[in-house]
Amino acid sequence: MNEYADAAQGGLAPDTLETVLRDIGASRYHNRHPLHRMMTSGSLSKEQLQAWALNRYCYQAVIPRKDAMILARAEDPAFRAEWRKRIEDHDGSDGWNGGIARWLKLATGLGLAPELVVSERGALPATRFAVGAYLSFCTNRSLLEAVASSLTELFSPMIISERVPAMLAKYDYVTEDILEYFRPRPAQASRDADFALSYVVRHADTPERQQAVIDALVFKCDVLWAMLDALEQAYGDHGHIPPGAFDPKRSP
Amino acid sequence: MNEYADAAQGGLAPDTLETVLRDIGASRYHNRHPLHRMMTSGSLSKEQLQAWALNRYCYQAVIPRKDAMILARAEDPAFRAEWRKRIEDHDGSDGWNGGIARWLKLATGLGLAPELVVSERGALPATRFAVGAYLSFCTNRSLLEAVASSLTELFSPMIISERVPAMLAKYDYVTEDILEYFRPRPAQASRDADFALSYVVRHADTPERQQAVIDALVFKCDVLWAMLDALEQAYGDHGHIPPGAFDPKRSP
Repeated sequence: MNEYADAAQGGLAPDTLETVLRDIGASRYHNRHPLHRMMTSGSLSKEQLQAWALNRYCYQAVIPRKDAMILARAEDPAFRAEWRKRIEDHDGSDGWNGGIARWLKLATGLGLAPELVVSERGALPATRFAVGAYLSFCTNRSLLEAVASSLTELFSPMIISERVPAMLAKYDYVTEDILEYFRPRPAQASRDADFALSYVVRHADTPERQQAVIDALVFKCDVLWAMLDALEQAYGDHGHIPPGAFDPKRSP
Repeated sequence: MNEYADAAQGGLAPDTLETVLRDIGASRYHNRHPLHRMMTSGSLSKEQLQAWALNRYCYQAVIPRKDAMILARAEDPAFRAEWRKRIEDHDGSDGWNGGIARWLKLATGLGLAPELVVSERGALPATRFAVGAYLSFCTNRSLLEAVASSLTELFSPMIISERVPAMLAKYDYVTEDILEYFRPRPAQASRDADFALSYVVRHADTPERQQAVIDALVFKCDVLWAMLDALEQAYGDHGHIPPGAFDPKRSP
């Protein structure tokens, strides 16, 4: 049922491996999820956007930790120096002037209390489980697989180019200012994805390793998809909020 | 938003701690989930029951592993001897004549191919993430928290007593034979839950430890709830199946 389960059988030329990886993005990246389409079509309520921002914060907050885990496992100083930029991008110089802080600005710009967002206590358990699975993956799998799982960044400039203009056009309370998070991201993501893709293609030098990097990217697409699934299940038009999670009707 | 987040503040008498733990079950155990109510009211399709059995297999399959993790962390031989019964219950004498095998019988009795179920490749990513979170919890948290997270078994005889008669009455293709999994479970679960509850109440001897066991049981209820949420999101009447997961329309 996973059409990529045997994709590397017999071994792939490096170009073919790259094609398979890009194809995974084309078929499984979360820009294909119904909730993303609802977002860009302007049909989400402010409360639904709040739930999205609040839950996605958990993901943003764990990114530098999973990157630090990758750093901790990398023996090559040049690799570490390159990968370290990701941590700097998200944490900034003092922890609160990088990407995480800009995501918090988005969440509070949508009307959420900063303590609620940062505490993560209103996040959906399913969000926490997906994000935890990502951190575990980068902890327990090979370094090559951990690097490969970052390759969703290949597709992130595309989803940002869909998301940002649509949000500005469709929701009158969304401003360029609160979307500041996304401004540097396409350039950062392209730089990071180029490096990671080159690393992956170079190091996936057996059919087994090629299959492992393919599986890693499928896994990561599953993480992002599951996060939107959980939002739709909890806050969609037919949804119900699980016990203890953020409830816009009860929240300040 | 989690009404149990400060439940142990100031410290609780052992009886009060037990009352709080039972109250968590009353408000958060997955017998309160809409999908469970649909199951017992007879309104699930055979395909929806298949998806439930297929996904729940992942949970069943990991139970002896999380119990082995608890065993590995326990220093007291008497504790280990007691806890080991759980592994025996699920694995049986040869791996395939205990609870896991009986769950497989349920899944195949509903018409699924055994290889599909055992391979877990049709399971929802969200199921895997929830089950993985449970295994991680029992690996990384304190032994006391790991034991406390098993306390959903306090409530399992109740959900089984709701589920089994209803399934036999409402679905003509469900027989006592394929529900054999549940036959020994109430007695096993009561024995296990009594032991775990007594351990937890005895060892949670500070407000901090009491809060930790309360949080552990809330976490575990979240795991079970998230598994039903994921099923509803994928296979419910308004659901959509995530890429790569079991699709009754395409499956043998």
